[in-house]
Amino acid sequence: MARRTDSIALVLPTRAPEETAGRWLTRTLRAEVLEGRLRTGSRLPATRDLAAQYGLSRGTIVNAFEELKAEGYLQGAVGSGTRVSAVLPDDLLAVRVSPGTAPRQSPVLRRYTATARRARPLGTLDPLPARAFRANQPALDLFPTSLWAQLSARRWRRASVADLLGTPALGFAPLREAVADYLRQSRGVRCQAEQVVIVSGVQESLALTAQLFVEPGDAVAFEDPGYLGARRVFETLGARLCPLSVDAEGMRPPSRRLAPRLIYCTPAHQFPLGLAMSLPRRLALLARARSLACPIFEDDYDSEYRYSGRPLPALQGLDQHGLVYFAGSFNKVLFPSLRLGYLVVPPDAVDRVHALRSVAVRQPTSLVEQAVLTEFIVAGHFGRHLRRMRETYAQRLGALQEGVRRQLAGALELSPFEAGLQTAAWLLQPGSDARRLVHQAAARRVELEALDDYALRPLERQGLLLGFAAVPEAETRRAVRELARLLEREPD
Amino acid sequence: MARRTDSIALVLPTRAPEETAGRWLTRTLRAEVLEGRLRTGSRLPATRDLAAQYGLSRGTIVNAFEELKAEGYLQGAVGSGTRVSAVLPDDLLAVRVSPGTAPRQSPVLRRYTATARRARPLGTLDPLPARAFRANQPALDLFPTSLWAQLSARRWRRASVADLLGTPALGFAPLREAVADYLRQSRGVRCQAEQVVIVSGVQESLALTAQLFVEPGDAVAFEDPGYLGARRVFETLGARLCPLSVDAEGMRPPSRRLAPRLIYCTPAHQFPLGLAMSLPRRLALLARARSLACPIFEDDYDSEYRYSGRPLPALQGLDQHGLVYFAGSFNKVLFPSLRLGYLVVPPDAVDRVHALRSVAVRQPTSLVEQAVLTEFIVAGHFGRHLRRMRETYAQRLGALQEGVRRQLAGALELSPFEAGLQTAAWLLQPGSDARRLVHQAAARRVELEALDDYALRPLERQGLLLGFAAVPEAETRRAVRELARLLEREPD
Repeated sequence: MARRTDSIALVLPTRAPEETAGRWLTRTLRAEVLEGRLRTGSRLPATRDLAAQYGLSRGTIVNAFEELKAEGYLQGAVGSGTRVSAVLPDDLLAVRVSPGTAPRQSPVLRRYTATARRARPLGTLDPLPARAFRANQPALDLFPTSLWAQLSARRWRRASVADLLGTPALGFAPLREAVADYLRQSRGVRCQAEQVVIVSGVQESLALTAQLFVEPGDAVAFEDPGYLGARRVFETLGARLCPLSVDAEGMRPPSRRLAPRLIYCTPAHQFPLGLAMSLPRRLALLARARSLACPIFEDDYDSEYRYSGRPLPALQGLDQHGLVYFAGSFNKVLFPSLRLGYLVVPPDAVDRVHALRSVAVRQPTSLVEQAVLTEFIVAGHFGRHLRRMRETYAQRLGALQEGVRRQLAGALELSPFEAGLQTAAWLLQPGSDARRLVHQAAARRVELEALDDYALRPLERQGLLLGFAAVPEAETRRAVRELARLLEREPD
Repeated sequence: MARRTDSIALVLPTRAPEETAGRWLTRTLRAEVLEGRLRTGSRLPATRDLAAQYGLSRGTIVNAFEELKAEGYLQGAVGSGTRVSAVLPDDLLAVRVSPGTAPRQSPVLRRYTATARRARPLGTLDPLPARAFRANQPALDLFPTSLWAQLSARRWRRASVADLLGTPALGFAPLREAVADYLRQSRGVRCQAEQVVIVSGVQESLALTAQLFVEPGDAVAFEDPGYLGARRVFETLGARLCPLSVDAEGMRPPSRRLAPRLIYCTPAHQFPLGLAMSLPRRLALLARARSLACPIFEDDYDSEYRYSGRPLPALQGLDQHGLVYFAGSFNKVLFPSLRLGYLVVPPDAVDRVHALRSVAVRQPTSLVEQAVLTEFIVAGHFGRHLRRMRETYAQRLGALQEGVRRQLAGALELSPFEAGLQTAAWLLQPGSDARRLVHQAAARRVELEALDDYALRPLERQGLLLGFAAVPEAETRRAVRELARLLEREPD
């Protein structure tokens, strides 16, 4: 009897009918320990008392105690009583483990599930999330969502075990073929499908290429002004960014003494200035890269939409020495949440990239999305979508150009510009301050970006980045009027 | 007349009716240059001759020449004749750019598109791609593909502009909530949704965490034997792997003099040995990590399927000091090509991980897949799928256990084992050689892996890794019979 004086009274929650007695007992005892109702060192009632209290066989109780001893929750031996383990620190006591119960939903999730089914289909009542002059955003309201949904449903209906199993590390083979075909035909890229790596977007291509070549402290030659997303990848890796000026022919090649480990550029249309790199400049850049034995990352960003001139062949297509890593993405031409892009690597780099990729992510995004995109390209929907969007964007660009000519002459000048979803514009009035203008415009619901935000060294002229693709012409015209009112005022 | 003596005869391909004359002329002239039919330095016919030859206005010809000069293909001035640029090296001549033409398909892609529409629905005629004893593979033929297809189609029909735009860098907010709920309830993880990062799988979680802590040359304490995929991430980063032995209680904590920068372990069930880390060992590991100020990567690999005992709370749930990074994946419990998993980071690491993530990939996988998974969890399909698969796998494990008991007693012993899709097994006969057996078994269409392949230091016993989840019981029984025949033979 003395043995039992320090034992505790055990009041366990009622057992559900579908749960076995043994499972219920181990689960609830474990919870009692973890939630602090059974303190470390405290003695449990004798098995016979527990058996009587809950109408269970003694064997059930003994088995439950043994399981909990094996797990470390209880200690003790037959005859000397069973105690809650002394090694359990107070730390443990706040943990709740209830493996048998169904998940309860958080308030946030309850709200989501309540509203998710009421969401309206695209293009009906959904407000456009963009204002003029938002940059880097396509006209999402014109994306053929229902066609994509059909292709997706059809692909899922045909899903095989092999589809569920996944794709090789470098991507779904038919998509790599379709991308290689597309790039050969429309971008002058020279490649086989084996050189195409399917990635989630240009950022992943950058991270992958940088990992191949850039160690902390290494010099990376970088367009100035240039794309911030790329800059951040190199900065994260501890690279030293060496700015390369951009003139009317595009980025100037790095000087020999820079000895960069990688050169980053956007030859199709320089970001953010918008101009294409001339053919002589491309050849000079390739020759310099060759003499430095330095690879080039060619970011083919937004090259799909050109409004004047004709595309020059990609740097990659001019390269005879396996120096160019060519990257593009479907996230801007289709929709940003797609997360599919491509990196074309030189033939002799395929094995290294494959090894690196297998380690980092094993597989790119979902196979079904890759398969749907393949079908979208192969069935000609991609080409049709590009043509349709090119017309729309040309009209939207026209509205911007006309608005600037009529209402902003003498105050703002669009930079020579050939392709993309946005254009650079120069402020002509003395004393102009692009960053101040960005803040003033925000108060009038006009989105602007200052070109200086993309510059490593201060630019000689004050300028803005103006997107025109995301919103209809009327919104662009409204924003032009607001901007004209702002620029008429004296600088304050 | 003398001016024209060195000019070349120009024979251009016929113009398609829908193409404007100017566009046709620039396109074909560019192709003539790029494909080497117009050599560098060669002089073009006079504009008036060309105009007469092709029935075009002289203005059209002049405009085309000006455009090609601007692009760098041609050079020269009015009156002195127009020549193909001298700076074009022979390198250029093999590049083909034909931006106006529709993509032609490669033979591989033609075969794919011809067969893709004939693919059979899952589970009817599709052969299972796996043989016993394939490890690390779930029973894909039992995945509810048509339900997933329905959810996916419904989600696409409801897609909004915001859905196309994408998710924050750390993942789709409702999925982060659903994962946090699930982990709190069933894994004893203590977290808020803000700590959950949606990733493509455990490999990405590893790469992300390693990037936070591991520099080349740093020590990483690593279970031995352990998961090869994790080992490769650390090796790629140039880490020094310090093996930690595994005994009956799980991995031993690192000694103080190792001073590791990160500790990698699989507490729920050690890979590849299969045992769970005891509660005292978990507490000792946390105490040691605390005194070393060293973070722990807890790989919760395959913890969803347990066949005996009850889950201990995750290390993460026992940690009071923000040391544990907890990672799991849906790719094994649902299907490998899904590419969705989670990393739970300590609250004070959220900002750093967010910064790192925004740079490396911007967004995780496709928003729609994340939304479909959210619905799958929230509507209870996930719980039902887990319960159904747990029953199936328990039966498949039973067939393996019974087969080993009846036919391999004295030759093979299954290791104590609680969870997962595969189990370790020890070879009992003196002189056994696991790697030789792997090769012999392959000839009998039996897939084996040697435990030594997962070891940093040679193991004291020869053992195998046997998967049982991917194939029906009959296939496992066949493979057990084959193995029994192999092990009865004298070692040769």
